[in-house]
Amino acid sequence: MVIELLSVGTELLLGDILNTNVQYLSRELAIYGFDIFHSSVVGDNEERIMDALKLALSRADMVITTGGLGATSDDITKDVVIKLVNRPQFIDVETKKVLEKRNLSKKIVQTNEKAYMFPEGSEVMINNHGIASGAWVPYNNKIIVFFPGPPNEMIPMFEESFIPLLLSKSDSVIESLSVKIGLLPEYEMYKKFEGPIKESINPTFAPYAKPDGSIIRITAKGKTKEETEKLLEKGFDQLRDVFGEYIIEAGDREKNQVLIDILKERKETVSCAESLTGGLLSSRLIEVAGASEVLKESYVTYSNEAKVKVLGVSDAVIREKTAVSEEICGEMLAGLKKNTNSNLQIATTGYAGPTGENVGLVYIGIRYNDNSEIHECKFTGDRDYIRRKTVNLAIDYSIMKMRREQHG
Amino acid sequence: MVIELLSVGTELLLGDILNTNVQYLSRELAIYGFDIFHSSVVGDNEERIMDALKLALSRADMVITTGGLGATSDDITKDVVIKLVNRPQFIDVETKKVLEKRNLSKKIVQTNEKAYMFPEGSEVMINNHGIASGAWVPYNNKIIVFFPGPPNEMIPMFEESFIPLLLSKSDSVIESLSVKIGLLPEYEMYKKFEGPIKESINPTFAPYAKPDGSIIRITAKGKTKEETEKLLEKGFDQLRDVFGEYIIEAGDREKNQVLIDILKERKETVSCAESLTGGLLSSRLIEVAGASEVLKESYVTYSNEAKVKVLGVSDAVIREKTAVSEEICGEMLAGLKKNTNSNLQIATTGYAGPTGENVGLVYIGIRYNDNSEIHECKFTGDRDYIRRKTVNLAIDYSIMKMRREQHG
Repeated sequence: MVIELLSVGTELLLGDILNTNVQYLSRELAIYGFDIFHSSVVGDNEERIMDALKLALSRADMVITTGGLGATSDDITKDVVIKLVNRPQFIDVETKKVLEKRNLSKKIVQTNEKAYMFPEGSEVMINNHGIASGAWVPYNNKIIVFFPGPPNEMIPMFEESFIPLLLSKSDSVIESLSVKIGLLPEYEMYKKFEGPIKESINPTFAPYAKPDGSIIRITAKGKTKEETEKLLEKGFDQLRDVFGEYIIEAGDREKNQVLIDILKERKETVSCAESLTGGLLSSRLIEVAGASEVLKESYVTYSNEAKVKVLGVSDAVIREKTAVSEEICGEMLAGLKKNTNSNLQIATTGYAGPTGENVGLVYIGIRYNDNSEIHECKFTGDRDYIRRKTVNLAIDYSIMKMRREQHG
Repeated sequence: MVIELLSVGTELLLGDILNTNVQYLSRELAIYGFDIFHSSVVGDNEERIMDALKLALSRADMVITTGGLGATSDDITKDVVIKLVNRPQFIDVETKKVLEKRNLSKKIVQTNEKAYMFPEGSEVMINNHGIASGAWVPYNNKIIVFFPGPPNEMIPMFEESFIPLLLSKSDSVIESLSVKIGLLPEYEMYKKFEGPIKESINPTFAPYAKPDGSIIRITAKGKTKEETEKLLEKGFDQLRDVFGEYIIEAGDREKNQVLIDILKERKETVSCAESLTGGLLSSRLIEVAGASEVLKESYVTYSNEAKVKVLGVSDAVIREKTAVSEEICGEMLAGLKKNTNSNLQIATTGYAGPTGENVGLVYIGIRYNDNSEIHECKFTGDRDYIRRKTVNLAIDYSIMKMRREQHG
């Protein structure tokens, strides 16, 4: 089945907002195996929306529109669909109830009558995060689906109403699982797993590059929930055989959450001594709600003086080896342990650039149960990339080390 | 003049990447006064690109494509344009030189011959951040412009080559100036300046909400450079009358850069004591290249124990007033001064949530020349928003305080 996307809204053509809906819908629909050959944006103009809708219907089996469902006079997507399909309308009782529940004054509900009117034969999708319902409208053996524009309304409607509707019209159960792989850049991950990514049909494997790491999404399709889950498990086993301990998470948690969760389970604490990352690592950990249980303090020791004064690093060793060395990284860990008595210590030192020699040379130190490992890394990229990459690897290494050493 | 945007790339239709180019181009072109009625995405398929290009040319005076200029076999945008305009091609010497300079082996340059061939009459736009040049191709009294897809190549090419080309074909000079306003949320800023934003014609004022603050962009159009600059200055004066010292920057610097620059000029240093921001503030400052001259060390004191131990904050005062209080924020500043002897100290303490009482209550302390000010703030938003907002306000307050107190 070919699906085409049509985003409606003059604000998109003025660049006032970023069209994230298209990426979301494209990715989700691709996972379910649909082809998308075109996606367009059109302003709030009746004639142009009608033309775009007709063009899309001439090229696809299903056209999904987003936006133009609000209550103001320039929100006309639904009117255009109604005009096109040209059928009697019905009152959707559920939508009407939702509108009344939303504490709207009666006057607004009445003026807004079109909000609960839909063309006969439509399946209405209730908006649990806003006013305007969406709908699935069969038309000439094709389907028009309209969604509200705000992503915080569209995404839940897609997940809670559209996908069940889609699956109810299909005779199979589809499920997927996101597996986060640590340490490997996307391309290397792809190379390691190229065979299954290219060849597998069910389950399928889709690689994604996220700013904080690489993800492979496994999607399986079976006749029953049991069959689907078995396929998903089989896919996960394939991944585990290749990536082993590099699998940071199978599920929805971010890697900072994973590390905080391990520490919480073990009732242990972490502290960081940061040079080039300058607080970014601590901040990533404190991002997680409840991190206060496990992170009490950290030090940003950006200068050599601060490393000596705050962490007790040896001035002589800095002079001999420079502050960007395995030795100093090890001393930072030891100083951190002494200052904080935490269970896990993480230290970073390196050259983030943009100028100078050895830009991209970074040492990441992890110490757990008084057992240290220092990783020498060489990154290629700008200052921001080098600092972010260091933080991500530090978290990956910490998770892997803690998992290897079962108890604290 | 009506411009239409055509994004080329199957990866966009699969949702692998977010199409930020369209927002960027839409906004920039709107500022220069062009109308955009349609914007489309099409995959790497010759027939579909050709159809989309013809359709766009039937509706607009200029069609701008992005993407599909790489060296692999599925990058075919330029081939389609060449096929459509059907004219002899020339070798662009500049592009060839750039390719040779890029340390590519001769073999690659030769195979890649199409990279420096362009249809007669084209104006070539050199790629200073990648391989593929773009071009401005007149065709049947209309114009086709093609850009590479990666935003880090497209945006500089747009600014450095496309805009000058566009202006050279116009009989007016257009210039703009971004003014960053501190402390005010976008809506408040808009309200304060609603009149000029709505009514002004030349210069125009366009408000933007960026993650790190609010911006008003002034754009002026004159017959000469002098006339344009005078208009721009007039616009800036209007802004200054309303926003005064809240103007953090008139130009391209981010606010972290502005603060680092002031410190560098005065040969002074800064240090931070961070509770809820957990290193994010220090990290924002260290993001700036050369920050090592002015930021030597910082402390993440997330727990009460750490505040007492590291900063010498009084345990009794924490018990009496809690750690989120004006008093403790002041003591954090004093401890920081004692530990670091920096010229500027910044301290943050507050409740980032998501649970508990008083979520969003934050104290931001700024101490400069041993003169402190403590700001009590109440933010509404999620954990991430509260932490980011705190960092941004801390930087705004620091800049304003340093500017008020001219010398350190």
